[in-house]
Amino acid sequence: MASVPVDKDSADQKLQFAPFSSALEAGFWHQLTQKKLNDYRLDESPKNIKGYYYNGDPVGLPTRLTLEFSAFEADGPSPARCCPVTGTLYNTNTLEAFKTSDKKALLEQQATEIWDSIQSGDALKDPSLLCKFLLLTYADLKKYHFYYWFCFPALCFSEGIKILKEPATLEQVFSSKQVTVGVYDPCTLPQHPGWPLRNLLFLLASKWGSQIDVMEVMCFRDRTLQGSRNIKHSIVFQVKLPVPEQSVNAVCPKNVGWEKNPKGSMGPRMVNLSECMDPKRLAESSVDLNLKLMRWRLVPSLDLDKVTSTKCLLLGAGTLGCNVARTLMGWGVRHITFVDNAKISYSNPVRQPLYEFEDCLGGGKSKALAAVDRLGKIFPGVNSEGHVMSIPMPGHPINFSEATMSQARQDVEHLEKLISEHDVVFLLMDTRESRWLPTVIAASNRKLVVNSALGFDTFVVMRHGLKKPKPCGPGDSSDPSSSSASSSSSTPAEPAQLPAASLFSNIPGHRLGCYFCNDVVAPGDSTRDRTLDQQCTVSRPGLAMIAGALAVELMVSILQHTEGGYAVASSSDDRMNEPPTSLGLVPHQIRGFLSRFDNVLPASLAFDKCTACSQIVLDSYEKDGFNFLSKVFNSSHSFLEDLTGLTQLHQETQNAEIWDMSDDESI
Amino acid sequence: MASVPVDKDSADQKLQFAPFSSALEAGFWHQLTQKKLNDYRLDESPKNIKGYYYNGDPVGLPTRLTLEFSAFEADGPSPARCCPVTGTLYNTNTLEAFKTSDKKALLEQQATEIWDSIQSGDALKDPSLLCKFLLLTYADLKKYHFYYWFCFPALCFSEGIKILKEPATLEQVFSSKQVTVGVYDPCTLPQHPGWPLRNLLFLLASKWGSQIDVMEVMCFRDRTLQGSRNIKHSIVFQVKLPVPEQSVNAVCPKNVGWEKNPKGSMGPRMVNLSECMDPKRLAESSVDLNLKLMRWRLVPSLDLDKVTSTKCLLLGAGTLGCNVARTLMGWGVRHITFVDNAKISYSNPVRQPLYEFEDCLGGGKSKALAAVDRLGKIFPGVNSEGHVMSIPMPGHPINFSEATMSQARQDVEHLEKLISEHDVVFLLMDTRESRWLPTVIAASNRKLVVNSALGFDTFVVMRHGLKKPKPCGPGDSSDPSSSSASSSSSTPAEPAQLPAASLFSNIPGHRLGCYFCNDVVAPGDSTRDRTLDQQCTVSRPGLAMIAGALAVELMVSILQHTEGGYAVASSSDDRMNEPPTSLGLVPHQIRGFLSRFDNVLPASLAFDKCTACSQIVLDSYEKDGFNFLSKVFNSSHSFLEDLTGLTQLHQETQNAEIWDMSDDESI
Repeated sequence: MASVPVDKDSADQKLQFAPFSSALEAGFWHQLTQKKLNDYRLDESPKNIKGYYYNGDPVGLPTRLTLEFSAFEADGPSPARCCPVTGTLYNTNTLEAFKTSDKKALLEQQATEIWDSIQSGDALKDPSLLCKFLLLTYADLKKYHFYYWFCFPALCFSEGIKILKEPATLEQVFSSKQVTVGVYDPCTLPQHPGWPLRNLLFLLASKWGSQIDVMEVMCFRDRTLQGSRNIKHSIVFQVKLPVPEQSVNAVCPKNVGWEKNPKGSMGPRMVNLSECMDPKRLAESSVDLNLKLMRWRLVPSLDLDKVTSTKCLLLGAGTLGCNVARTLMGWGVRHITFVDNAKISYSNPVRQPLYEFEDCLGGGKSKALAAVDRLGKIFPGVNSEGHVMSIPMPGHPINFSEATMSQARQDVEHLEKLISEHDVVFLLMDTRESRWLPTVIAASNRKLVVNSALGFDTFVVMRHGLKKPKPCGPGDSSDPSSSSASSSSSTPAEPAQLPAASLFSNIPGHRLGCYFCNDVVAPGDSTRDRTLDQQCTVSRPGLAMIAGALAVELMVSILQHTEGGYAVASSSDDRMNEPPTSLGLVPHQIRGFLSRFDNVLPASLAFDKCTACSQIVLDSYEKDGFNFLSKVFNSSHSFLEDLTGLTQLHQETQNAEIWDMSDDESI
Repeated sequence: MASVPVDKDSADQKLQFAPFSSALEAGFWHQLTQKKLNDYRLDESPKNIKGYYYNGDPVGLPTRLTLEFSAFEADGPSPARCCPVTGTLYNTNTLEAFKTSDKKALLEQQATEIWDSIQSGDALKDPSLLCKFLLLTYADLKKYHFYYWFCFPALCFSEGIKILKEPATLEQVFSSKQVTVGVYDPCTLPQHPGWPLRNLLFLLASKWGSQIDVMEVMCFRDRTLQGSRNIKHSIVFQVKLPVPEQSVNAVCPKNVGWEKNPKGSMGPRMVNLSECMDPKRLAESSVDLNLKLMRWRLVPSLDLDKVTSTKCLLLGAGTLGCNVARTLMGWGVRHITFVDNAKISYSNPVRQPLYEFEDCLGGGKSKALAAVDRLGKIFPGVNSEGHVMSIPMPGHPINFSEATMSQARQDVEHLEKLISEHDVVFLLMDTRESRWLPTVIAASNRKLVVNSALGFDTFVVMRHGLKKPKPCGPGDSSDPSSSSASSSSSTPAEPAQLPAASLFSNIPGHRLGCYFCNDVVAPGDSTRDRTLDQQCTVSRPGLAMIAGALAVELMVSILQHTEGGYAVASSSDDRMNEPPTSLGLVPHQIRGFLSRFDNVLPASLAFDKCTACSQIVLDSYEKDGFNFLSKVFNSSHSFLEDLTGLTQLHQETQNAEIWDMSDDESI
């Protein structure tokens, strides 16, 4: 072999390449099975297939060459910003044939093709000829065991490639404006380029190696971070290109390419998919992949498990409930429970996206049950339940008979059980009164509550304040199961205790108000009801979609905060500050005004005379349980107002100036 | 009869009452049919039914007593803020029986019940006994002809009720703080109370008439206007109550109540529902009603027909397309066309709300066709079409063969035809390049374009500037059908011509930019592509719902503006000003930032070197048609950049300061 001219001054460091890791999705195996059964049968001849790789992954991920469902459409599109790679599939009929395949010959054949394309100049016209792969498979369709081995053929310089200038980031060197050779680089290592560069360098060396002493290489990496594209993770370095041995009638240089198995040794891999060849499993893995892309490409710190494992209770399955459920499905939430006592009417399907015309016939199906059916049709992997029940309400008496009392008691117990079994409670009803009971129960259970209500073109989406955990002494709670049922995501470390603090900023989660804290009358007095929650159906059709989506996005942002529901409330003023989570702000309330296409983020303190979440109400509920609740249901609003001290407050302010709280969006 | 003491000084004006108008929804007849067939059969005995009325209607609407589907559930709920009324149904078996029913006796019987409840004091405990109705019906189920007659029994003062103080608005008199008798009043006339007051006054007169000289009456009306409830339309007046003749063992006073027919004479009505007893028709009328409530209760000036008659073309049926279609359905839009060439994959249904798991099997259905199927399932009255086709793109050559050229020509012609046949074009694709061709065609056709694109947690929703109408001379347009195909809603009067104006405010619609106006390179050069439109699937799941909903709400707001697409663009600064439409602002762009729960409303001018909407591009397209387009498809970006003068601009600025336009959200 001719020796490469070496600059003695330079270090002996050699350029190293990060190999591809094969990433085979279940969809690929599914489609291979179909092809084998319906198309290839016993044909073992090589087939053209297709994979792709991506240059926007964050540090720490392997350089993946992905093959999915679409791998068999060699001319089909690749995902946006992904680079397609053509490959050859050798699918054998027997495990024996798989084992005894001449791997060296297969690689040699591919490498020769690459080398030929370099020699002929074809690779100059079409550099994609330089990056190929080879996949050897055996599919055991009785057991759904798949054996496979990838090969990424690369031509080798016999003595390696010396590094003359160590990798630096693009930022550090771009100003020099040197002409460089660029490559779309899927590698995420800060010091190494990925596999595609290998044969490109071989091409360059072969053509111009003797004329060029120093070659500058730019490995272009194009990540998206918080919505904006950014190439500063790309790396640039200089190399000295050796001149390959011969250039006329040369034999193929040495080559490598078989992938290591997970143990790090050369050898095939096996995957047992007997449990996920079911199309339903396939749907699950596709949905998961979609979510993981968010983490891989954009928000590496995103804790998806925290989101997908959250058990959500949706009180109300109307316009808001349907849209909340759809957004939860998009986030991969698997456990969704509906409570509603209404039936589907003809005007519902165009605004309530879990129902269809058929659901309205014959008087209409129950919303809670039809919603469950629909979720299963959208995504069979969901775990959903529906409960057709009424929620007892203040000022809606239940003391007509033994039967109505007993029914109300049953409804309360049912609701208590449901709330204790879930992590997040969504209040999505169309009346204000019906939100009172779940607000009290959830506050007592220390469950995160996300509340949304619609006006005609305005909405509110808010989290309720989350009271500090109860002391663990026995007898503190009327429902001993309630504390232990709290999930880990809603039982954070002791939240930061702030001093009296400024009134409306930096309010920690445990001091935030609930839906009723801004009211100075108890629920049940409908003449004082505010417009927001009175007329769910008379709203601009886009409003419920926006509010439903924001309710879920708020929940997800809260879950991403290390303190969860105890997180300090972000306000509109925080929009220009460093956000507290990887997804941004965690406000107390989002109040939206569609006519102005505007949202404001008020935060407000818990009210010590609140008719739902004040200590005296919670104490009464925890001490007297249903006896207390039934008094509230049967009484006019004065009962709660007397209890909380609102009555006295009214008397004190009667002759004083009235502070109109109906409009206080700015706090 | 005892004469009523009369104050000779007062005028002789008598109090008059606005009678109820019966409002019978198709759902009522549908349910009556079911009841008759399955339940009543030949039973003619009276049945308890239920209607309701509402006190929030704007001026000009009749005082409706509404009976719907739910009328037969006498104890069922009424819509929020509506007042239930119990009634009695007399459904006869024959037309003859209907005609010969003793109407006088029926009324007398009802009136007697009212009178008895007054006598006994029951009406004091339950004033709802005073407001009842009676409905006489005959249902011809062979022809679906329904004969009916309503009666709203009212007891009469033999000499009427004198007015002592004319009606004034609540505002004018409330300060006097007089004790008044209040009534929930469904009437919208500024000078008259509705029917429910009649018998209440009779009760009061009967009980206290001899003790009270002057009775002040407050007719409480509770309207919602632009999201806030408001009672200032309530009216207050004073009356002198006569004392009814006898108070012990008295016979029932004179009474009235049968409704007039539409001709204004006493008599029954007939409605021919042979065409809408189909449940599908029923769904249509329910959806319409829901929309009309918006107008009746909240935005009287809302022009619903303009919205529902708009023909919408949706380019893209993915996450955005599905959500846009759903919101359009909510607004009652009936004509929705989809264009997409993709198939449904397993990860789609949880984010694309028109698809389900079943649609993914066997390689997946075509999105455009599956979307149409779904719309029909949601609402059978929709008129929807799907087109599985690709949109040719700049920099994506078509000159491989005769066949690809011919296919591209066909696709262009197809797209031109679709755009000319629709009123609004939605751009909802997941690549930037694919938006170019429809932007050019729609600009040339003077069609309103609403464009939306997603990033990970950011979105843009915008309307394209709408060029002024072309002169009407012959030969001006390469497509003579394009002008005449414009709908009336997109061919406004000549828009107000503003002078050079301040740069970024008060930009009239015809001077607004398109999606490509902010770019300084032509589409097709994907390394310069901005992040927004590259990764539709890697976005926070709530984002597409929000952007899709806002795209439709923006369209609706534009349609409500008298100048339509020529309306001056509202900006963030206009949020505090008087809005230009009953629905609020009509911005150029809405740019949303989910991490901050914030939207901004930038507006920007059309760019005279824009690669899509500049005059030279439109001229080239209109003059050379497909020949021009094929050059764009086959060329690199330099062709468009040369044509528009961008190349020259680049050269001029090459050595000058670079204005980074990648971040200019503020303009």
